[in-house]
Amino acid sequence: MGMIGGGEGSFIGAIHRKAAALDGHIDLVCGAFSSSATKSLTTGVGLYLPEKRCYASYREMIASEQLLPENERMDFVSIVTPNHLHFEPAAFAMQNGFDVVIDKPITLTLQEAKDLKEISKKTGKVLCLTHTYTGYPMIKEAKYLLSKNKLGRIRKIFVTYPQGWLSTKLEDAQQKQAAWRTDPSKSGIAGSMGDIGTHAFNLVEYVTGLEVTAMCAKISTVVIGRQLDDDGMVLLEFNNGATGSLVATQVAAGEENNLTLQVYGELGGLEWQHKDANSLLLKWPNAPMQVYRAGTDYISDVAKYNCRTPAGHPEGFIEAFANIYKNFARTLIARNNNVEADIYAFDFPGLEDGIRGMAFIENVIAAGNSKEKWKTFEV
Amino acid sequence: MGMIGGGEGSFIGAIHRKAAALDGHIDLVCGAFSSSATKSLTTGVGLYLPEKRCYASYREMIASEQLLPENERMDFVSIVTPNHLHFEPAAFAMQNGFDVVIDKPITLTLQEAKDLKEISKKTGKVLCLTHTYTGYPMIKEAKYLLSKNKLGRIRKIFVTYPQGWLSTKLEDAQQKQAAWRTDPSKSGIAGSMGDIGTHAFNLVEYVTGLEVTAMCAKISTVVIGRQLDDDGMVLLEFNNGATGSLVATQVAAGEENNLTLQVYGELGGLEWQHKDANSLLLKWPNAPMQVYRAGTDYISDVAKYNCRTPAGHPEGFIEAFANIYKNFARTLIARNNNVEADIYAFDFPGLEDGIRGMAFIENVIAAGNSKEKWKTFEV
Amino acid sequence: MGMIGGGEGSFIGAIHRKAAALDGHIDLVCGAFSSSATKSLTTGVGLYLPEKRCYASYREMIASEQLLPENERMDFVSIVTPNHLHFEPAAFAMQNGFDVVIDKPITLTLQEAKDLKEISKKTGKVLCLTHTYTGYPMIKEAKYLLSKNKLGRIRKIFVTYPQGWLSTKLEDAQQKQAAWRTDPSKSGIAGSMGDIGTHAFNLVEYVTGLEVTAMCAKISTVVIGRQLDDDGMVLLEFNNGATGSLVATQVAAGEENNLTLQVYGELGGLEWQHKDANSLLLKWPNAPMQVYRAGTDYISDVAKYNCRTPAGHPEGFIEAFANIYKNFARTLIARNNNVEADIYAFDFPGLEDGIRGMAFIENVIAAGNSKEKWKTFEV
Amino acid sequence: MGMIGGGEGSFIGAIHRKAAALDGHIDLVCGAFSSSATKSLTTGVGLYLPEKRCYASYREMIASEQLLPENERMDFVSIVTPNHLHFEPAAFAMQNGFDVVIDKPITLTLQEAKDLKEISKKTGKVLCLTHTYTGYPMIKEAKYLLSKNKLGRIRKIFVTYPQGWLSTKLEDAQQKQAAWRTDPSKSGIAGSMGDIGTHAFNLVEYVTGLEVTAMCAKISTVVIGRQLDDDGMVLLEFNNGATGSLVATQVAAGEENNLTLQVYGELGGLEWQHKDANSLLLKWPNAPMQVYRAGTDYISDVAKYNCRTPAGHPEGFIEAFANIYKNFARTLIARNNNVEADIYAFDFPGLEDGIRGMAFIENVIAAGNSKEKWKTFEV
Repeated sequence: MGMIGGGEGSFIGAIHRKAAALDGHIDLVCGAFSSSATKSLTTGVGLYLPEKRCYASYREMIASEQLLPENERMDFVSIVTPNHLHFEPAAFAMQNGFDVVIDKPITLTLQEAKDLKEISKKTGKVLCLTHTYTGYPMIKEAKYLLSKNKLGRIRKIFVTYPQGWLSTKLEDAQQKQAAWRTDPSKSGIAGSMGDIGTHAFNLVEYVTGLEVTAMCAKISTVVIGRQLDDDGMVLLEFNNGATGSLVATQVAAGEENNLTLQVYGELGGLEWQHKDANSLLLKWPNAPMQVYRAGTDYISDVAKYNCRTPAGHPEGFIEAFANIYKNFARTLIARNNNVEADIYAFDFPGLEDGIRGMAFIENVIAAGNSKEKWKTFEV
Repeated sequence: MGMIGGGEGSFIGAIHRKAAALDGHIDLVCGAFSSSATKSLTTGVGLYLPEKRCYASYREMIASEQLLPENERMDFVSIVTPNHLHFEPAAFAMQNGFDVVIDKPITLTLQEAKDLKEISKKTGKVLCLTHTYTGYPMIKEAKYLLSKNKLGRIRKIFVTYPQGWLSTKLEDAQQKQAAWRTDPSKSGIAGSMGDIGTHAFNLVEYVTGLEVTAMCAKISTVVIGRQLDDDGMVLLEFNNGATGSLVATQVAAGEENNLTLQVYGELGGLEWQHKDANSLLLKWPNAPMQVYRAGTDYISDVAKYNCRTPAGHPEGFIEAFANIYKNFARTLIARNNNVEADIYAFDFPGLEDGIRGMAFIENVIAAGNSKEKWKTFEV
Repeated sequence: MGMIGGGEGSFIGAIHRKAAALDGHIDLVCGAFSSSATKSLTTGVGLYLPEKRCYASYREMIASEQLLPENERMDFVSIVTPNHLHFEPAAFAMQNGFDVVIDKPITLTLQEAKDLKEISKKTGKVLCLTHTYTGYPMIKEAKYLLSKNKLGRIRKIFVTYPQGWLSTKLEDAQQKQAAWRTDPSKSGIAGSMGDIGTHAFNLVEYVTGLEVTAMCAKISTVVIGRQLDDDGMVLLEFNNGATGSLVATQVAAGEENNLTLQVYGELGGLEWQHKDANSLLLKWPNAPMQVYRAGTDYISDVAKYNCRTPAGHPEGFIEAFANIYKNFARTLIARNNNVEADIYAFDFPGLEDGIRGMAFIENVIAAGNSKEKWKTFEV
Repeated sequence: MGMIGGGEGSFIGAIHRKAAALDGHIDLVCGAFSSSATKSLTTGVGLYLPEKRCYASYREMIASEQLLPENERMDFVSIVTPNHLHFEPAAFAMQNGFDVVIDKPITLTLQEAKDLKEISKKTGKVLCLTHTYTGYPMIKEAKYLLSKNKLGRIRKIFVTYPQGWLSTKLEDAQQKQAAWRTDPSKSGIAGSMGDIGTHAFNLVEYVTGLEVTAMCAKISTVVIGRQLDDDGMVLLEFNNGATGSLVATQVAAGEENNLTLQVYGELGGLEWQHKDANSLLLKWPNAPMQVYRAGTDYISDVAKYNCRTPAGHPEGFIEAFANIYKNFARTLIARNNNVEADIYAFDFPGLEDGIRGMAFIENVIAAGNSKEKWKTFEV
């Protein structure tokens, strides 16, 4: 793996590296960690890379790695830059023979996401999008149970994602994460909706297998002077007639990263909370609530496939992240060795998730600006 | 106390009786428990009442009790009938010299609620509305802390009230509670919005001291063939510029009575969950979350006033209910004895809550039916 | 009901009155609330009693009430005085024709408890002991499930009861509750073991249906200068071969009333926590944990019999207490009316529990003082 | 890193590899994964190792690696074999110039542990013992807060570690983990006390900084026919006069890995639960309970040093494990580069923990067998 971005001050770069390293399938072999050659070198050396594979730019990295023998050169790139620097390196990497991992949201605009899909089709290269939450074993279990119609027809879906870290105007305090995320030139047309709204949206569609068809939204910029939204509440209609809501806010002062999903069908309900990620609650009208747990014998094979430890050994955010890398890696390894991959290896987010995520951003901002109550979801 | 309604098959009648009895200030002395004289008698005798004070109708009860010596006759009536049978007995009681307790929602229509207010003004009689949740000590504490500006300016308010008991068409199964609550002639224009939406609405306005100014609503009848809404999602605007959402649904299969309130200000957030009613969570950006507990030494005087036991002895739904009765009783006792009541005795829901509750019902149904995004809240 | 004790400064007296009042079967009609006639009068009048039934002593009360017509006089006495004032009024009441409720522990010594049993036998009067925790519906459910062998043979039992209220030398601060509970002349030979250890012991034997046969104990007085134990840890052997432990401490600074019971059998485990009293956890080796809830349709008839509200309406400490009074009352009512009582009405703690509780106190203190590892449990 | 043990069927080997890999400081470069050369090869190749560095025995590995150039050869060995195979490879590795990581308990006997200490002294090689639980950030925080006397003098300490996985005679079902752990020739004189009791013991001494001075124990073999204890309850005395208890059982059917620690001082209490490992509860007599959380700004530097993600991104078992490896690695790197290590890098369990852990095993088994109540803790 070669990394693009992830130099000093990056939060997500280090997470990607740890997630990629965890299961032993992936080695970081090179990187273009910063647009400054010096900084890139410093970061790379700190990561025990040889100096010559600490590149000054992604273009240099891709060009140089191509020249290395196949068994030495990087297998894929991992792009962990801000949103406006996703499309070009991803396109360039695929066009030059490398598979790609990108942090979400996939691109700056919906059109860029569609273009990446075309490039992927033409080049045959695989793109993996790190929607972390879908990597949790109990999210896999929730998806599995719903796919088996365990709750009957789904009627109601609620997802809430409150954070508090942007309760103050952190972007004025030289906080690098806050700065780019609230800057339209780097983040795109959405702030909170792009940063965490897309996660919530992806989670809902992933777990239920349903698609949002229309949205009614109140999108707000709560902190005065901020350039992008930091708060949004969205009513949802789904393609099976279910309705629901999505709340994503970064001004819920005192909240950490409190993602919660609730799905109710004709027969019962399920609930998953990020803060207790190894549990999945199954609620029944006339029977005791059940607490499904990661690592147990009774969960589905797909959930087990995404566990590393027996029940009672909590797995966390990095493990969920690592499941995405692991499944991506297993898919590539199988392809590269011309063998069939495990059936569960293909279960990682990709271009379709990326396109729908960008469509979510564009539709939800339009819905927020609209005086009409409902906006049809268009891709 | 004389009770109107609350015969066999009633859920809430027994709760009112237990809540009224708990603290020793109130005795049930008579009742018109049913429109059937026989049933009323059976119920009353089962409650150890003398036969002659088991009346066949509320009119008979009020007329007869008036003739008793002051120290024998009932002091007030408690009305626990379905909504369509609230206004007339309440009006008649006040006009004949009796104070009144009514179960929520106060009446069948907003106009009736306004009329009751006029009658109360003219007669000087007190009306108490049993919005139970405002009786919980930690709700008192939440209100107190917000009134002291503990969280700074309030920005976001979320209230959710999922229940599952109407997930199936229970009204077809001779379930008395379900039958009248889904019947427009008895329940009014709203189902879930009247039954539990009003509770959620009242809780939000009570705790925050803010008023809803506009609503955007998706109101649904999820169970096919049901006559009234059983599900609703509402976006809210408040008079201080805060926004929020209210979800109240009775088709969340597997949920019990899972009311939750979250309020976020500039400085932090608070959370209260009905299922852990004796705790109040205070969340801070740069300090550990605090768990305030009922019955402790450090809570406010008003919260203590509504506790009966030291910390660690859970108080529940009936105690919250009883706080409303207790405060009402203390208000009456003080008035009847021409002394000043405790300052916290006046803290029970009344006509203004009733009027805003009915306005909520009328506005939210109108908002649900509207194609306009936002509906101004009108009283 | 006539009350003995429970004047100003009493904690438990008010709880008894509220618990007795809750369900409408029991009226407080008289009391000897204090050894001071004036104080007794003040308390009684504050409780709306006629002055003439506010007695100066329990002897006066029992003598006077006997002279009243049967339908006017109190049916039973409720004794809520400190431990050293239990035996005499209980004996006198039974000998004079009144049934008795006593707060735990039943007496000052084991011998007194045995004597009360003899008196009860001779007089035919019923004695009810308020071991509150056995009144919780989910404790009834736990007992029911174990009686049906749901967990297989029981192997391990853990009960812990940490409180923090005696972490400092509160008895020096004129705190009335602390003063008598740490005074051997009023409390008996045990402090924490008598006050809360007996509750824990009673809970274990009640729920499991097993009997403790031997104990190994470390009993401590942690706060310097205190006259009785404030802390104890006990290893237990049971008559089916199971083992376990009991921890009861009043110096766990910061704890409220955090009673927890865990029972493990060959097939699974159960857990009940006082702070979440309406839930019962069933844990299984190869199936999801189940959360049984009070007020649901699926719990046993005996648990339902002890619920007042549907699931989701939390019932608390007073309701648990009230279940003991309610069952006692129903037993008396049936007897007095010569009808058969409900089968679940007899389910309240009584003389046998009292005797074993006093035996626990005597054995555990002896075990604590012993240099031998194990002390056989003797009654 | 070169691994000894950890072939197919091993649970802990994979955990060690993932934990070592997580932070990018450590590469697995060779291994003697099994006593079968074929199996070792299969495992190693599956881990992307070159065939020539998949050794048939630890002796071969150590001998061969010594011959490699310094910058190629392994820096240390990680020993993940059953207990009886700890001492010899550890001794041999140190004697031949390699630092050592060992899974707990350190050796088969206390004497072996003492001998390892001598060897370490002579060779100057570092030994790291993977007592995972001390790697959790909130355990670091607990230790920090106690070291700052946040709770005043410590009075009571409770640690409980219930598991259910040995509720049945799993060792008869060819379960490899169960087989060696219940076999005295491989596990030593203790079963549950060695496997999880040592963790609980280490946790208590680590967090409080106190030392156990005497124990009273009931050690049981609950499952019939099992060769070693599967359950134990221990009363503890500490060198500051505090008392407490330790429960460790593997027959608590339905429990996962439910380690809990509670410490009470004069001023308050703290509680940590493995199932909510990122929280630390601070309980106060007259102030709200506080929930300290991993990844926040307000925790101590040492706790932060052991976090990888901001608050709200749960870190789990592997991260705790990885903290031990990371700190060990940083210590070695500093030493190898002749620079000073971070002050927090030295914070990993080592020989002293190993010796006291083995002393715990020997003392607790002796205490269990003793008819005397208390056994002095001897090392």
